[in-house]
Amino acid sequence: MGSTQKKKLTPFQHVEGVRKGHRASIAQTITLIESSAAKHFEDAQSVLEQLMPYTGKSVRIGITGVPGAGKSTLIEELGMQLCESGFKVAVLAVDPSSSVNRGSILGDKTRMGRLSKHPDAYVRPSPTGGNLGGVAKKTRETMLVCEAAGYDVIIIETVGVGQSELTVRSLVDFFMVLMLTGGGDELQGIKKGLMEIADAVFINKADGSNKQPAELAKAEYNRLLHFLQPASPGWETKAYTVSALTGEGMDNIWNVIQSFKQTMKGNGHFDQRRREQVSEWMERLMIDELTSSFYQNEQLQEHFAQNKKLVQDGEKPLRKAIQELMEEYRQIQQKKEK
Amino acid sequence: MGSTQKKKLTPFQHVEGVRKGHRASIAQTITLIESSAAKHFEDAQSVLEQLMPYTGKSVRIGITGVPGAGKSTLIEELGMQLCESGFKVAVLAVDPSSSVNRGSILGDKTRMGRLSKHPDAYVRPSPTGGNLGGVAKKTRETMLVCEAAGYDVIIIETVGVGQSELTVRSLVDFFMVLMLTGGGDELQGIKKGLMEIADAVFINKADGSNKQPAELAKAEYNRLLHFLQPASPGWETKAYTVSALTGEGMDNIWNVIQSFKQTMKGNGHFDQRRREQVSEWMERLMIDELTSSFYQNEQLQEHFAQNKKLVQDGEKPLRKAIQELMEEYRQIQQKKEK
Repeated sequence: MGSTQKKKLTPFQHVEGVRKGHRASIAQTITLIESSAAKHFEDAQSVLEQLMPYTGKSVRIGITGVPGAGKSTLIEELGMQLCESGFKVAVLAVDPSSSVNRGSILGDKTRMGRLSKHPDAYVRPSPTGGNLGGVAKKTRETMLVCEAAGYDVIIIETVGVGQSELTVRSLVDFFMVLMLTGGGDELQGIKKGLMEIADAVFINKADGSNKQPAELAKAEYNRLLHFLQPASPGWETKAYTVSALTGEGMDNIWNVIQSFKQTMKGNGHFDQRRREQVSEWMERLMIDELTSSFYQNEQLQEHFAQNKKLVQDGEKPLRKAIQELMEEYRQIQQKKEK
Repeated sequence: MGSTQKKKLTPFQHVEGVRKGHRASIAQTITLIESSAAKHFEDAQSVLEQLMPYTGKSVRIGITGVPGAGKSTLIEELGMQLCESGFKVAVLAVDPSSSVNRGSILGDKTRMGRLSKHPDAYVRPSPTGGNLGGVAKKTRETMLVCEAAGYDVIIIETVGVGQSELTVRSLVDFFMVLMLTGGGDELQGIKKGLMEIADAVFINKADGSNKQPAELAKAEYNRLLHFLQPASPGWETKAYTVSALTGEGMDNIWNVIQSFKQTMKGNGHFDQRRREQVSEWMERLMIDELTSSFYQNEQLQEHFAQNKKLVQDGEKPLRKAIQELMEEYRQIQQKKEK
């Protein structure tokens, strides 16, 4: 935020800089958008409004994977490969809390050292601070800024804490899960609902003595996926092996994505999903705002907690508690303005 | 509603009647609670408040299954078996909309003819009308009324349209899924997330020539369940075969439930889940009420739809639209009272 204030750009300058693809402008615009200061809100929205006509033209890819699955290395490899094929690639991250995963986030820029130096790539470390909702809200807008700046592949990664995969799924066209092979029974303990939202599962580190187990894991994943309804209508989610280290199977990632895009554009679900994502996003944000306007009030927050305990202990009926709290909320809203 | 008005009982009379286990009083009390008329709210909450100390002592069982899985027959068999062992059994239903499934709901009383005539059973058909949220809110309270009336096994069934299984899961201790065997590949097309919330899967109609395929299906389900995290900590979800027709495997249902209860009471998760359910329920209802206070206003509803289209068409930034709508909401709230 400090740097935004030092040499404050006008909305017009932000738009100009982003449209020209200036990295510094992109970074400053994202910082402006990420700011939670009320005074930046108008400018940020004005910039976004002017950028809107230039958005929507990228392929949006979501990637998740357990820590140690080799996400960063794979993204860097994929990104380099795409840049060398003439694409412009932006890498963003959704993390529920920078404090919990400080290492992995602050490390992004360093770890993707090669990619972040490439003239056709933009690697954005996660914003520091803010809860998942807050960060995710901004990630959507950050993605739009990158699109307006001419990036045609946007990769959004998450370490998969809490609900972050669902958040990323609601932002992207194609969602892939990166897995590792371990002992025998690796499918146990897969995070609930994760397979149901995947368009592809890539088993990484399929190299050396790990190649055989990875092939077996692939077969197991395919068996499981066969049981589940596909995440995207008309597209069959499958498992693949890959090695970011040797490069084997790396080409295939982009092939799968291309084939996915073609299928989904063909059956109309590509554009439909995007419209639905905006719709869901907006409904969720509306609910968030309404909920905040209640919980932001300390008195209401406290009374809610007290009432919850009473209901849990069987001392007050639930709906009665809710009605009283709503009444209090309305009274506070009125007082505030009189 | 008509009958409640005709011979209106006082809250005290409702409480007395329910506590004595009078069927007519139970029915009238539930009707009072289900009423959406504002004038019934105070009485209903007063009755519930007085009944609260007598609630919470039952085992709450949720059952879902595709139409044709033989849910009603199985519930009736299970209910009869329990009544004959000295239990008092109440059967409630959660249905997303009576208009869609009119047949199955209105048919309940007839279909469970034997059980509903049993002196120790109470079979409540779904309330007519109302959305899922509305009906579900009341189902929780209906369950409490039945508990206060001395029913020690509460069975809540759903046909599984929309999100109704999740709603039922959030109401009960033990959740079971009733399945059928068909051709070979029956596991495909299982509703998303359904297996993850089940404490047991029963494959019904395991009789005659269907017995062998049912055993095979059981093995397949067990394989799938093995992949997934269990719905209840410390409890392994498994598949079983059963025939409500021949009675084979029927005893086992209650054995599984007893064993589940013992395990969950032992590890403390039984009571913990109930407290969490109340907590989630209350948070969800609070959000519902806050959201309603927005969407109930026709002008806001209309402006929301208009803004959504603008955002979808890339003509307005999302957060700007939300901010304008919140501003309008606040102004309307103030005007209303001045």
